[in-house]
Amino acid sequence: MTLSPPLTELISQVPPFDESAAAAARTRQDLLTKPQGSLGQLEALSVQIAGITGCLDPEIEPTAVIVAAATHGVCEEGVSAFPAEVTAQMVTNFLHGTAAINALARNCNAEVFIVDAGVVPECPDDEKLHHLGFGKGSANFAKQAAMEKSEAESIIERGAAFATKLHQQGIRMISLGEMGIGNTTAAAAVVAVITDSSPSATTGRGTMIDDDTWQKKVSVIEQAIAKHQLDSKDAIGILSAFGGYETGFLCGCILGAASCRMPVILDGYPTSAAALLAELLHPDIKKIMIAGHCSAEPGHRLALDHLELKPLLNLSMRLGEGSGAALAIPIVTAAVRCLNEMATFEEAAVAGRKT
Amino acid sequence: MTLSPPLTELISQVPPFDESAAAAARTRQDLLTKPQGSLGQLEALSVQIAGITGCLDPEIEPTAVIVAAATHGVCEEGVSAFPAEVTAQMVTNFLHGTAAINALARNCNAEVFIVDAGVVPECPDDEKLHHLGFGKGSANFAKQAAMEKSEAESIIERGAAFATKLHQQGIRMISLGEMGIGNTTAAAAVVAVITDSSPSATTGRGTMIDDDTWQKKVSVIEQAIAKHQLDSKDAIGILSAFGGYETGFLCGCILGAASCRMPVILDGYPTSAAALLAELLHPDIKKIMIAGHCSAEPGHRLALDHLELKPLLNLSMRLGEGSGAALAIPIVTAAVRCLNEMATFEEAAVAGRKT
Repeated sequence: MTLSPPLTELISQVPPFDESAAAAARTRQDLLTKPQGSLGQLEALSVQIAGITGCLDPEIEPTAVIVAAATHGVCEEGVSAFPAEVTAQMVTNFLHGTAAINALARNCNAEVFIVDAGVVPECPDDEKLHHLGFGKGSANFAKQAAMEKSEAESIIERGAAFATKLHQQGIRMISLGEMGIGNTTAAAAVVAVITDSSPSATTGRGTMIDDDTWQKKVSVIEQAIAKHQLDSKDAIGILSAFGGYETGFLCGCILGAASCRMPVILDGYPTSAAALLAELLHPDIKKIMIAGHCSAEPGHRLALDHLELKPLLNLSMRLGEGSGAALAIPIVTAAVRCLNEMATFEEAAVAGRKT
Repeated sequence: MTLSPPLTELISQVPPFDESAAAAARTRQDLLTKPQGSLGQLEALSVQIAGITGCLDPEIEPTAVIVAAATHGVCEEGVSAFPAEVTAQMVTNFLHGTAAINALARNCNAEVFIVDAGVVPECPDDEKLHHLGFGKGSANFAKQAAMEKSEAESIIERGAAFATKLHQQGIRMISLGEMGIGNTTAAAAVVAVITDSSPSATTGRGTMIDDDTWQKKVSVIEQAIAKHQLDSKDAIGILSAFGGYETGFLCGCILGAASCRMPVILDGYPTSAAALLAELLHPDIKKIMIAGHCSAEPGHRLALDHLELKPLLNLSMRLGEGSGAALAIPIVTAAVRCLNEMATFEEAAVAGRKT
């Protein structure tokens, strides 16, 4: 797989996970005033963040909640319970601050960044919207590739540049989300190819489609996989085959965050597809990923297992928008606070275990 | 079971769960801009809180994090990996703001209230500590009742008065926690009797005791249950048999919160024992309870199942102090925000499902 020079350079800039900072955090956890291991997954999370940031006293706030939106050509095949124009309408809802993700971001003082990665009909002209001026959504992958390979590379670069710019502006952690009617269909195709799973295992109910629509969704994916003949390691080939643009953008955000040592919180199924693509581009990059939650989409669990990620939340959510990731932000900040703000047994003069 | 006049009056003051507010919240959830049900457990939580508060636009902040501490006489039997004096030392740690619960409360802007429900040696004289001036911890229940029945009633009344006073001071939700070396032993006895389970099923590793200590812990509980001959519906008898004072205090907090229509977030095993006792005193009171998490203690799941509560978090935590409850506070506030701050499909002019 030959990548574009900018992507090759970007990937070469990703620093390694800092094993010594992680080990120091593990040692500190064992000295804090609690039985060892009693904070469970919070302890592992704090150790991971020390390793990502290379710091025992990591800054992960402010956190940016990124929601990338794009239209999916595959909607023509009738794979969703909602019409494709809902994508643009929901972008307006995000900009008005009245969608679930806005409420969830306010709940933890995170700032929301809405990105138009190719939405049809055109999104409103709003200074709060980050227009990429990038295409008009993906082509119908049942008939042709969702996008050109050069576009796939370019949208990833745009995502990386976006995350890097947020870091320059002071952001210290990113939480990923998406909006795109039809995008669980694209995700199911991406996850099937990368994890070598059958489309019937990776295809879920999305926005609660009925049995007939589910059958059609599976069949569209099966036929497209047969037609495109992909290498399961070829991130650019897979992204260009199925899309969508928001998935490529989010994959780039992960690479950009990694280059700046920022932790990334994943949301649901489409963001896990972006994460799998990023992992193909840089096999160690899963170490900067935190699985915010496990959604009700069955393929999401397959993707998380492939990435060896254990989700923080299991609340039967299946909305997208970054909702599960944003809900996990306070858990991540809590983990870091416990590492940094707790006294050791010695500092607090608390007796340890009986010997 | 005849209760003291103050307890009888308190219980009579608990208003019923408001089914019509809950139904209105359910209706509203189905109109909001998301596929129906896609916020999963967050939707159920918002409906529950509407029913508890009797309000579609419920106020649940500020939230109080209550940590009740007490010494347990049963520690004499060697049931814990830590010495009994750690209870008092940890109270000092709480007052200094350097324990896990302090970090977790700061993480969600909740205020911490530390209550001395009978700690030996005496706790420091600190204006931030709420001294009840109540006893010197429970007696060793392997040898005698942990407390008099009149004391059991009195400590419950004190808890109810405390929660009521917090409500008068503006608090709108409470999150419960405890500290007491030995209190998972008391909890295991309480849960075994109320859920009619064997002590080997309700007894866990607490602060990570070894196999021999675990065997001893089970055997102490088995013998005490055989000796005390309790009615599984007699909350006062069970509390007086096993304690602890903090458990009785927290049981009272639940009753007091219910009388003020405040939701209560439960933490780990000892708080679930308090919840089971409260449920015996008022069989509908579980409707105001939210299970913050499921701890690594095996009996905790038994207690939550008995109360028909589904925990919000499963992060293998087993610290106590209210840590799992406090970590769940942002999830609860998020659920209420989504109900109140999201637009409906009509308000946002977003197209609904295809027909």
